[in-house]
Amino acid sequence: MTQTLTLDDVNAMSQAEFVAALGDIFEHAPWVAENAWHVRPYETVKELHQAMFNAVRGRGPTDRIAFLNGHPDLGGALARARAMTAASNSEQGGLGLDKLDDARFAQFEAMNASYKERFGIPFILCVRRHTRASVLRQFARRLKNPLAVERDAAMGEVFFITRLRVADRVNGPGMPAVNGRFSTHVLDTTTGKPAANIPITLFELDDGNALPVAEAVTNADGRTNAPLLGGAPLRIGQYELRFDMRAHFAGRPSLADPPYFDTIPIRFAVAEPEGHYHVPLLAAPWSYTTYRGS
Amino acid sequence: MTQTLTLDDVNAMSQAEFVAALGDIFEHAPWVAENAWHVRPYETVKELHQAMFNAVRGRGPTDRIAFLNGHPDLGGALARARAMTAASNSEQGGLGLDKLDDARFAQFEAMNASYKERFGIPFILCVRRHTRASVLRQFARRLKNPLAVERDAAMGEVFFITRLRVADRVNGPGMPAVNGRFSTHVLDTTTGKPAANIPITLFELDDGNALPVAEAVTNADGRTNAPLLGGAPLRIGQYELRFDMRAHFAGRPSLADPPYFDTIPIRFAVAEPEGHYHVPLLAAPWSYTTYRGS
Amino acid sequence: MTQTLTLDDVNAMSQAEFVAALGDIFEHAPWVAENAWHVRPYETVKELHQAMFNAVRGRGPTDRIAFLNGHPDLGGALARARAMTAASNSEQGGLGLDKLDDARFAQFEAMNASYKERFGIPFILCVRRHTRASVLRQFARRLKNPLAVERDAAMGEVFFITRLRVADRVNGPGMPAVNGRFSTHVLDTTTGKPAANIPITLFELDDGNALPVAEAVTNADGRTNAPLLGGAPLRIGQYELRFDMRAHFAGRPSLADPPYFDTIPIRFAVAEPEGHYHVPLLAAPWSYTTYRGS
Amino acid sequence: MTQTLTLDDVNAMSQAEFVAALGDIFEHAPWVAENAWHVRPYETVKELHQAMFNAVRGRGPTDRIAFLNGHPDLGGALARARAMTAASNSEQGGLGLDKLDDARFAQFEAMNASYKERFGIPFILCVRRHTRASVLRQFARRLKNPLAVERDAAMGEVFFITRLRVADRVNGPGMPAVNGRFSTHVLDTTTGKPAANIPITLFELDDGNALPVAEAVTNADGRTNAPLLGGAPLRIGQYELRFDMRAHFAGRPSLADPPYFDTIPIRFAVAEPEGHYHVPLLAAPWSYTTYRGS
Repeated sequence: MTQTLTLDDVNAMSQAEFVAALGDIFEHAPWVAENAWHVRPYETVKELHQAMFNAVRGRGPTDRIAFLNGHPDLGGALARARAMTAASNSEQGGLGLDKLDDARFAQFEAMNASYKERFGIPFILCVRRHTRASVLRQFARRLKNPLAVERDAAMGEVFFITRLRVADRVNGPGMPAVNGRFSTHVLDTTTGKPAANIPITLFELDDGNALPVAEAVTNADGRTNAPLLGGAPLRIGQYELRFDMRAHFAGRPSLADPPYFDTIPIRFAVAEPEGHYHVPLLAAPWSYTTYRGS
Repeated sequence: MTQTLTLDDVNAMSQAEFVAALGDIFEHAPWVAENAWHVRPYETVKELHQAMFNAVRGRGPTDRIAFLNGHPDLGGALARARAMTAASNSEQGGLGLDKLDDARFAQFEAMNASYKERFGIPFILCVRRHTRASVLRQFARRLKNPLAVERDAAMGEVFFITRLRVADRVNGPGMPAVNGRFSTHVLDTTTGKPAANIPITLFELDDGNALPVAEAVTNADGRTNAPLLGGAPLRIGQYELRFDMRAHFAGRPSLADPPYFDTIPIRFAVAEPEGHYHVPLLAAPWSYTTYRGS
Repeated sequence: MTQTLTLDDVNAMSQAEFVAALGDIFEHAPWVAENAWHVRPYETVKELHQAMFNAVRGRGPTDRIAFLNGHPDLGGALARARAMTAASNSEQGGLGLDKLDDARFAQFEAMNASYKERFGIPFILCVRRHTRASVLRQFARRLKNPLAVERDAAMGEVFFITRLRVADRVNGPGMPAVNGRFSTHVLDTTTGKPAANIPITLFELDDGNALPVAEAVTNADGRTNAPLLGGAPLRIGQYELRFDMRAHFAGRPSLADPPYFDTIPIRFAVAEPEGHYHVPLLAAPWSYTTYRGS
Repeated sequence: MTQTLTLDDVNAMSQAEFVAALGDIFEHAPWVAENAWHVRPYETVKELHQAMFNAVRGRGPTDRIAFLNGHPDLGGALARARAMTAASNSEQGGLGLDKLDDARFAQFEAMNASYKERFGIPFILCVRRHTRASVLRQFARRLKNPLAVERDAAMGEVFFITRLRVADRVNGPGMPAVNGRFSTHVLDTTTGKPAANIPITLFELDDGNALPVAEAVTNADGRTNAPLLGGAPLRIGQYELRFDMRAHFAGRPSLADPPYFDTIPIRFAVAEPEGHYHVPLLAAPWSYTTYRGS
């Protein structure tokens, strides 16, 4: 997303301008911006976000719960109707939670109802940090939390949600590190050289289905010209990276027919959305090694 | 299959008994057995098969082509009706070629027709040595052969088909090596010990679908108690072996949530039906290596 | 060593014969055999040894200490003069402790003196389970033990020493597992086949020196025809295995000059003298992997 | 070496100044500089070198051989007396060829004599690109060359020698790529993280001896802060890199005593002095992998 404001712009705003510009970052809570405005100027974008977050955290439990209750259900009727705030529409839409089929919609509705009954607030999750399968896994896991733990978890998610929204909106020094990066590297251990021109596809695994999320071809250094994923948080979840080695190994003297390896799949999980995942492949025609690199 | 005859039995037979017992090994060609009977006694089962095969190979081209024309279509109307010889019914049935859906049936019919038009004989393949995907690949590939090459290829397949039929029927010294073997071994490179209790599933890959063909759990030595596949030729084709490492690595101090590796898939191809495929996994929580072992 | 007695022989002996045959197994303590004779017959060789060991363990502390004091110094004046029991001469001689140069002799004398002063017994170690470097390391380490721990440690070593002596002398059912085994396997990951004809040397590392202890050449299966070490306990200590890959990789198209790998060294330690150490090499011209196998 | 001249300086020089500044780059052949001066100005340092080299290459065979004969013996009497040109003193001194013991001196004398007798010129080698062991290997190998091949080889070495001398002397755009780089990276496959604080020593292997040439400790990214070698050509030859893993793995639950791996040695050869050698280690307590990276 293009940030349209600089930190200098923000620091120069009147309270009314500030609330107009950033009042929707905390869902249905313009008072957060009103409050945070008083601690200007911000030296970094991180500080701006922290000031806003502190405005919520400084409130008593009743206010905080009221604030949490201002959030929409995940995959709920409002999502389906795209009747949430613009940010929520975009975040939930990014996962397709606005287009669930009827069975899935019912599943989300049931989980939302259980959750609300148990905790008295809607289930809040920074969906931009999760695959859809991970959202469901989090739902199931957090339903088992004690109340106090779960309220902290909800506030933790608010932190992630709003940090991303601030980073989308404001540009300046001290940006929070909200983006992850996914890269790979293919080396041919028979030649001691990078393997160029290897087609690579990255799939997200969702309940047995493999959904392609990125494609690339390795360059002369055996890497991709740009990270396979980047410029956003990586979504927590399961992935499969597939390397199409057939053309690369074709014609080697010791190859079998069909060749022992053709497409090499590597399945792994992302657990740190803001991390760097480097997933290399060291390949020979009859053996390969993969590892998490750095 | 249980062999009901010993080589001694066979060597003691009259010509009529011999033809009654083995006359159907070469498809619709009892004259092969009649002929081979004259070179008794056989010291090994291999010799018995070789004698029968030589009886065909010694004939002139017209006879050989007539013999090849005695074979049924692959996946054709006779297969559907199970109106072939018992052996062909069983062989084609083992791949489901008797139960093709209409689209696939049409695909086979078209290929059979092209093949026959081009070569003047039915497409002959030892289907017990191939997955269904490999059958289709062979069809496409052999259609491009020059006529002389392809007639040799057909005779080569007759060799494989009949060798298996002989090995099914007769027991004795010098059995031909018709069976492959598929094994695995899981080692944990963090502990230096075999990884026990790892659930393993072997899938055949068919046109994007993964069909489970074997399941096992590793024993204390990180191996399976019996080969995952064995006692028959391995079918040429693509496979995927999946190791469910989640429980094994659970609780390790450096594990992420979700763990970096959960199910580890290894895709490979079988090219030698009578070979030993040993596909080990050397696994740590953040790296693994596989290779074709011996 | 060739066992000259069977367990049946032993079970049939009179007490005098038994003491004559086995009385020297426990160093200068024929009473151990006298005592153990009473619990015949033994069903296994293990039981025979256990009965003898129990005869010592059942004594009070004074007797046990007197027994321990019957042992010679390691690398001491008696060793130099080969004036110990035949078994001790052979055991210490196997490590060259009878031929220490003057500097090493002085080092052993000083350690023996420190040890005796501290614990009131000679330093006892089953030297057949250790390299010379490991003997010195054990010396240094055990000098720091509390008295009670160290007396147990000495009895533990007596157990190992006498178990080996019993296994040398008596053959029969239920032999104790006293022997280790060291094996390797070389696979070429470029061809997917075992690497044959690879010269292999195994070195013991002693204070910076590499002493060759075994040599072999790989067979067609990439293994050695016999274990590199076996038929005895493996000596605890550091080793280096060197694979001479030059001829194997010579002529490969992607080789550099000089080739990236020539001799591949693998350093590792043996910690379990009775264990199986399988140290394989998976090699390509520009990469290799090793691991402890099983 | 600090370059004291810029390319602009050089381009502005009179012929006399140019010869005074660069006339010794080609051994005892100031006419090379005289000649090359005429094709100024040079846009790159590479061009300057090429112009000088062309001045030799453009001459007839008699002149070229006279020029080659202006070079000193490798490890000869002049080297011992340090009575060569300053550049040759420094180059041969960098390998210790000025301090050979009597046995080695005699070996070099004998080889120089054989070579001269066979080819009519001294043995010329860019010693800054070779270890001492590699110098001897080159000597032995080139003695077998046909005369024409060997004269080309000598000119090729003159190219390398003078390219390095030019790069030492002149700074400016278009520097020739004369330096290699040697780096490493240690990853712990049990934790999925770089292994920090690993002491690393790089040894040059010379006829069975391991001479330490660089030492470093890995940083938080598992790399060394500076390349282990760089800023000069890598010397063609055999090396051993040793990683001291003991402290890193100490305390892991599955460790043996002594630990299976302590110091991990990796032996490899440098064949491209101007290349980048990246030699990583992927290590678990019971397995490791190395490969040539990029």
